[in-house]
Amino acid sequence: MKSAEMLVRVRQGDPMALAKAITLVENRKKDYKNLLEGIYPLTGKALKIGITGSPGSGKSSLIEKMIAGLKAQGLPIAVLAVDPSSPLTGGALLGDRLRMIQHSNDANVFIRSIANRGHLGGLSLSTHEIVDLLQASGKEIIIIETVGVGQSEVDIINVADVVLMVLNPDSGDEIQIFKAGIIEIADIFVINKSDLGGSDNKIGEIRNYFATTAKPPLIFATSVKENKGISELLAGIKQFQQEESGRIDEKRANIKRNYVEKIVAERFREEMRLDSGIADMLQTAAAANPFQLADRIVQKLKTGGIHDKKN
Amino acid sequence: MKSAEMLVRVRQGDPMALAKAITLVENRKKDYKNLLEGIYPLTGKALKIGITGSPGSGKSSLIEKMIAGLKAQGLPIAVLAVDPSSPLTGGALLGDRLRMIQHSNDANVFIRSIANRGHLGGLSLSTHEIVDLLQASGKEIIIIETVGVGQSEVDIINVADVVLMVLNPDSGDEIQIFKAGIIEIADIFVINKSDLGGSDNKIGEIRNYFATTAKPPLIFATSVKENKGISELLAGIKQFQQEESGRIDEKRANIKRNYVEKIVAERFREEMRLDSGIADMLQTAAAANPFQLADRIVQKLKTGGIHDKKN
Repeated sequence: MKSAEMLVRVRQGDPMALAKAITLVENRKKDYKNLLEGIYPLTGKALKIGITGSPGSGKSSLIEKMIAGLKAQGLPIAVLAVDPSSPLTGGALLGDRLRMIQHSNDANVFIRSIANRGHLGGLSLSTHEIVDLLQASGKEIIIIETVGVGQSEVDIINVADVVLMVLNPDSGDEIQIFKAGIIEIADIFVINKSDLGGSDNKIGEIRNYFATTAKPPLIFATSVKENKGISELLAGIKQFQQEESGRIDEKRANIKRNYVEKIVAERFREEMRLDSGIADMLQTAAAANPFQLADRIVQKLKTGGIHDKKN
Repeated sequence: MKSAEMLVRVRQGDPMALAKAITLVENRKKDYKNLLEGIYPLTGKALKIGITGSPGSGKSSLIEKMIAGLKAQGLPIAVLAVDPSSPLTGGALLGDRLRMIQHSNDANVFIRSIANRGHLGGLSLSTHEIVDLLQASGKEIIIIETVGVGQSEVDIINVADVVLMVLNPDSGDEIQIFKAGIIEIADIFVINKSDLGGSDNKIGEIRNYFATTAKPPLIFATSVKENKGISELLAGIKQFQQEESGRIDEKRANIKRNYVEKIVAERFREEMRLDSGIADMLQTAAAANPFQLADRIVQKLKTGGIHDKKN
């Protein structure tokens, strides 16, 4: 499939073309830049919901319930599960993603798990671009799930309009969350597995933390097991979208700036990789003065013309 | 203190000058580049031990015991505790670092806690540079402790010669470790709090994971409470240093390459930040075509002459 045809079919919402386009972008295959140029004008409309939390907090089954509720509203939905890769094997682990499969034969729900190759836990440039592909294909709600380990958890602010942090009544994650500063990027807290009891204590702890904040975050208690609190959570997300539209616009502008900066950094990295002279220079790094070597590489990048060759 | 005088005093091992030099480098203050140029020839000799593991696994008290053992060998030691900053407040949390204070009046033990400003959990460029300052001041053993949350945990391979992963007999971290690929960067596993019982099971699990590996990692059980296994662990680190010197050399070459690449990236970031034209361009990002905007920024970085102004 040529990128022009792929673009047409992605725009029509063809799930097969969408899946192929994602693979193309993920793997930085020939033509991916043309495809991205083509979809860019179609982006910016979907609501991007980032969901993070510790492994075992029940994110996947919560998302399954959220999908059911959103489907009832007739909205085309996509779920992107971001798996941190192993730095050595490059493999992605699917784990309990499989539970979401009950929705996977539904034309209105597109589910994809992506790895984070080469970024050791942070969200890669392609995560942003895959979200754009999903928007171009007409998805109105895009849920991005990151496992609550590593950089991707904090990096979610660089793709999502609204960030949900999933906790459990009995989880002792507070110190970890507080230490990593993750608590400050969450817009909505979800105390999942509320059937275990003790959600009120957890809600109290969070309220306490934000006691002096002008605009404390929304907090919801949910139970997937007892099917409780899901519609309230979905209404809360809608409320955030409506009441905080100024904040969402501001977030989107930041996301866009961050994306452009990442493209610039990727172009220089690409030039560094393609320039055999620089590769040779880096081979000498062990014995070299690192500052002089960096100077020489910067100069070579500035005078080299590799970037003019597109794709 | 001028950077030339600071350099002389750092070389003499003056702890006050060392502390000031670290602050200078951390804060990117005037003259820090001259200082780094000056210390660079003095680096590369110390053994850098990276220690990672979940909060609560007892890393700090284990390090305290390790220090006692290393001091007995007459080695000048430094401990660098890397705290992930809050992305919003920029503050570092010290927590149980304070327990190490019993060694803090000892001229042979230099302890410092550093934040990771602006890197949301990854190790910043200055972490590498602070390790170099410690080497220049004559420290022979440098212990780098990262809290086991976020990017810094995996990023430890970019500073340490040998990576220790601290677990507990009863900890259920395996899935998290496995998912984040952290298990594959550890050279030595430490089952700390072995007094709780069950270390053998944990050791079995790790051996299982590496069953098909040509060179399985070293595993030690330690108890700070009962003061057990510490000297065996120290001997194991020495054994790794001797038997795996080829691997350490290879790691050091990679660390150096990675450092040079980070300096190059920092120089371009710095130019982007200092160039008011680029700042203006980024202000338009929300409405712009991101690829064309990135192209224009790359061109501006290539033709701009800001980099020639040093410091």
